[in-house]
Amino acid sequence: MTNSIKNSAVLLIHCPDKPGIVVAITDFIHKNDGNILYLDQHVDTERGVFFMRIEWDLSKFVIQREKIAEYFDTLVGSRYQMTSQLHFSDTKLRMALFVSKLPHCFYDLLARYECGELNVEIPVIISNHDDLKHVADRLGIDFHCIEISGENKQQQEEKQKELLVKHGIDFIVLARYMQVLSDGFVKAYPQRIINIHHSFLPAFPGGRPYHSAFERGVKIIGATSHYVTAELDAGPIIEQDVVHVSHKDTVDDMVRIGRDLEKIVLARAVRHHVHNDLLVYENRTVVFE
Amino acid sequence: MTNSIKNSAVLLIHCPDKPGIVVAITDFIHKNDGNILYLDQHVDTERGVFFMRIEWDLSKFVIQREKIAEYFDTLVGSRYQMTSQLHFSDTKLRMALFVSKLPHCFYDLLARYECGELNVEIPVIISNHDDLKHVADRLGIDFHCIEISGENKQQQEEKQKELLVKHGIDFIVLARYMQVLSDGFVKAYPQRIINIHHSFLPAFPGGRPYHSAFERGVKIIGATSHYVTAELDAGPIIEQDVVHVSHKDTVDDMVRIGRDLEKIVLARAVRHHVHNDLLVYENRTVVFE
Amino acid sequence: MTNSIKNSAVLLIHCPDKPGIVVAITDFIHKNDGNILYLDQHVDTERGVFFMRIEWDLSKFVIQREKIAEYFDTLVGSRYQMTSQLHFSDTKLRMALFVSKLPHCFYDLLARYECGELNVEIPVIISNHDDLKHVADRLGIDFHCIEISGENKQQQEEKQKELLVKHGIDFIVLARYMQVLSDGFVKAYPQRIINIHHSFLPAFPGGRPYHSAFERGVKIIGATSHYVTAELDAGPIIEQDVVHVSHKDTVDDMVRIGRDLEKIVLARAVRHHVHNDLLVYENRTVVFE
Amino acid sequence: MTNSIKNSAVLLIHCPDKPGIVVAITDFIHKNDGNILYLDQHVDTERGVFFMRIEWDLSKFVIQREKIAEYFDTLVGSRYQMTSQLHFSDTKLRMALFVSKLPHCFYDLLARYECGELNVEIPVIISNHDDLKHVADRLGIDFHCIEISGENKQQQEEKQKELLVKHGIDFIVLARYMQVLSDGFVKAYPQRIINIHHSFLPAFPGGRPYHSAFERGVKIIGATSHYVTAELDAGPIIEQDVVHVSHKDTVDDMVRIGRDLEKIVLARAVRHHVHNDLLVYENRTVVFE
Repeated sequence: MTNSIKNSAVLLIHCPDKPGIVVAITDFIHKNDGNILYLDQHVDTERGVFFMRIEWDLSKFVIQREKIAEYFDTLVGSRYQMTSQLHFSDTKLRMALFVSKLPHCFYDLLARYECGELNVEIPVIISNHDDLKHVADRLGIDFHCIEISGENKQQQEEKQKELLVKHGIDFIVLARYMQVLSDGFVKAYPQRIINIHHSFLPAFPGGRPYHSAFERGVKIIGATSHYVTAELDAGPIIEQDVVHVSHKDTVDDMVRIGRDLEKIVLARAVRHHVHNDLLVYENRTVVFE
Repeated sequence: MTNSIKNSAVLLIHCPDKPGIVVAITDFIHKNDGNILYLDQHVDTERGVFFMRIEWDLSKFVIQREKIAEYFDTLVGSRYQMTSQLHFSDTKLRMALFVSKLPHCFYDLLARYECGELNVEIPVIISNHDDLKHVADRLGIDFHCIEISGENKQQQEEKQKELLVKHGIDFIVLARYMQVLSDGFVKAYPQRIINIHHSFLPAFPGGRPYHSAFERGVKIIGATSHYVTAELDAGPIIEQDVVHVSHKDTVDDMVRIGRDLEKIVLARAVRHHVHNDLLVYENRTVVFE
Repeated sequence: MTNSIKNSAVLLIHCPDKPGIVVAITDFIHKNDGNILYLDQHVDTERGVFFMRIEWDLSKFVIQREKIAEYFDTLVGSRYQMTSQLHFSDTKLRMALFVSKLPHCFYDLLARYECGELNVEIPVIISNHDDLKHVADRLGIDFHCIEISGENKQQQEEKQKELLVKHGIDFIVLARYMQVLSDGFVKAYPQRIINIHHSFLPAFPGGRPYHSAFERGVKIIGATSHYVTAELDAGPIIEQDVVHVSHKDTVDDMVRIGRDLEKIVLARAVRHHVHNDLLVYENRTVVFE
Repeated sequence: MTNSIKNSAVLLIHCPDKPGIVVAITDFIHKNDGNILYLDQHVDTERGVFFMRIEWDLSKFVIQREKIAEYFDTLVGSRYQMTSQLHFSDTKLRMALFVSKLPHCFYDLLARYECGELNVEIPVIISNHDDLKHVADRLGIDFHCIEISGENKQQQEEKQKELLVKHGIDFIVLARYMQVLSDGFVKAYPQRIINIHHSFLPAFPGGRPYHSAFERGVKIIGATSHYVTAELDAGPIIEQDVVHVSHKDTVDDMVRIGRDLEKIVLARAVRHHVHNDLLVYENRTVVFE
């Protein structure tokens, strides 16, 4: 689906499943002169949880933007114990890009940014090396080289956080950033840090997954984009894809073939995040599309 | 999604898009004590057409089954110029299987039938050869060999139609049935005849698509399941899938590789049809899943 | 590739890589009036190992079938420390089918057998239940129900082995056979027992992989066919494939969707084994195709 | 496979199939102290044509580079009516990039170029618009805007050819270049112009394939890279890939989804061309990999 209407609101909702939820929500929007553009609903029957993404045109909606969340919670949400997020489609999220030396995901995201494919602002790039500074420079994006060692991690992460706050960052994309973020850092950005891991998780978490894939003799390799949580490579999976390999492919071949996979799987995750298509519930994502 | 509740109703709807449709439909169900199980909605913004599949639990629904269609049309459908179909999930559709000599799709569907994978009754198998009669016999399915030649087609199709009527057939599956059905026959079963074509349509319609694929040197081959319409291989596409081939693959290899594709693409289409997941609009299918 | 010539020999070779190997082998065949039909060669540069599959027409070959292995080893193999296997394309391998209650792979292989797709003989089917006896009966295949419990395993495996010997079995296919074979049993059939596991190994080995996949929230599920070794689900991988799933798919949906994958991935592995396309080296397969 | 050895030669050969060809070729290399690195051979049994790609280490080869082609033709090639091409792995091909306004393939190839993924030199970029000049400028690549209209085509193509000659261009990549090249131009670069078409050819040749795909209601869209020949979108196919779409996807969605496909399918084709993996025979490619 494409979002052609600029002045729309998106509600992402989950709550215990009960009869009447769909009517309650759609009625709230309709009675207040909102025109429903998209409605996607799903019930996890095993857990008894109701999920919905609903988007509506705000042009004739009688409730003011800043009052919608309050009205919805009072009139609908609280009755059904809903957890909800409200987004507006004309908001441009501010994204920070973290990168190390491997440039393929970094180039790919910046090319999409430059072409206008990604509906975000990228005010700042943070790296533990300065190899890619020239790329940031030519696009006029603020670049900070913040080297990380075993000793200075906490202190350097403080510097990173200051930059994120200064630039009003909404979410972070780790474009093959080769450092593990501390728990404290991760908790400051819940479901707002997207990582790309170069294996089909849960196979081959941690370092050197292509080497492990080669050793195990698998016939497919994969890439996984996920939200970062405290446990390494164990956060909610957003997107995965795979490609076939053969006995002829060396580790170097897998690295090469995997690059295209990583680029696309990361870009799709960023798109879903930006389009407010994602809900997380018990370490699983609901991806409305 | 799985249909675990047996006593449910499914409405498939399309109509000109307008504000208020979702509310009108969900309100009708909710007010009459139907519990909505699934709701999938889609707007074709280019054509301005609204599509919906909605399924609800009938166990407490206050309107009797045989009255639902009438009440819905009167109270909701007519106001929005809706075209709708009503189905009940406990209805077992009656399917006729047409086959020639190639057995792979035939065996595959019958194995699914025997395992209980397909929620249908197959009371009759019709073929223009008697090669596969023994398979029908051992499953106790009525088998009719009706040979077709250029001269006797009309007359033989009459015999086929009599069998279909006699067995109360709801829909027909052509499991590599190597005869073109006449326009008259096709029109008698609109959106109720499913064919499998061994190419990724619209590439290579008509006969010998694997030969044509080989000649053209394509790197992928495909299979397409579609509803049969008067124009050959031009009906609404239900499912498609492909597989990679290489210069090493001969026409015979493509035939072999394609068999697995044909089996799966046809079986998926049958499943969608049986589960009332399909709407056709202007020669395109809407596949709710 | 298709094997159209019936009177051909296949050599599968591996040895330490050195200059001159290709010439030595092809020269041996050519000088003795063998016409090379297929040659596929591969060097694992990391391990320094040379692999080859070579097939040649025997119709004018001057060395008698029963002498080829001896002549080859003496004149070529021993000089290069080759490990080689010799097969003849007109040999029909004898395959035993092991099954429990889940019938989809079982039906699929038997349908391929009945259609003549698999170039094997299946003289015997062994199960720990008698649910599928009627299917064996109607095809006239010997069926033995050998129930396994914790106590009687060794004794029952002896019965199985007797049957395998009696029927002159070359290799065994576990078509969702829900018992773990003992080490002793496995060692009696090295690289001659093919299993299908319903996950993309090494993710989700052991029992209930679809449940684990659901819990982890993966976006793809897979199937893996492999040779059985002493360590559970850790043998050399022959074939893998995957299919995309979404948050909408329940465990039951994954089970259903996975069935088609399991069928195809197992059938491809059987085909490779039968066509002598497989070499195993350090727990990895070389699949010549 | 990866090409780690820099000082190697590659022979691409096709000829009428006969016994003894493999031995003749490998013997020629081995006797002259060349170490065979890769050998891939294929027989098109329908046409009776033998194909081979063979690569060998030149470090001890006794025949000088500039003499290899002559010696090979005299001693081997002419006896078997071979058509052969000789390449050296340390030659860096010179590639011209043609582009219009759509930037995704253009950015993607340049990012690969900048990362060192493509083993080529790109001395010149030619466009019929100047929109992307700034991207060429920042990489220091010569950029020429040569506008094409109905009247000036011949004259403008002359300018293009002059630039190609001046820059010593070996092959041309059309990265969504929206102009049809004249027959004369195409004939000047046989099997040296690579195009990306945004459909799975032969479906939807010509303009606006995503619109046609939407109209036809296909469930997969594709991209095809091919050598350009006189007939539009009918040249030998090098690579194809597809992605699933649904009824929810508008033409704009297909355009967006297709971009990633186009990028990858074009990049793979360029890689194959650069690695001398491609042979063309009767409008079909043999892709050695």
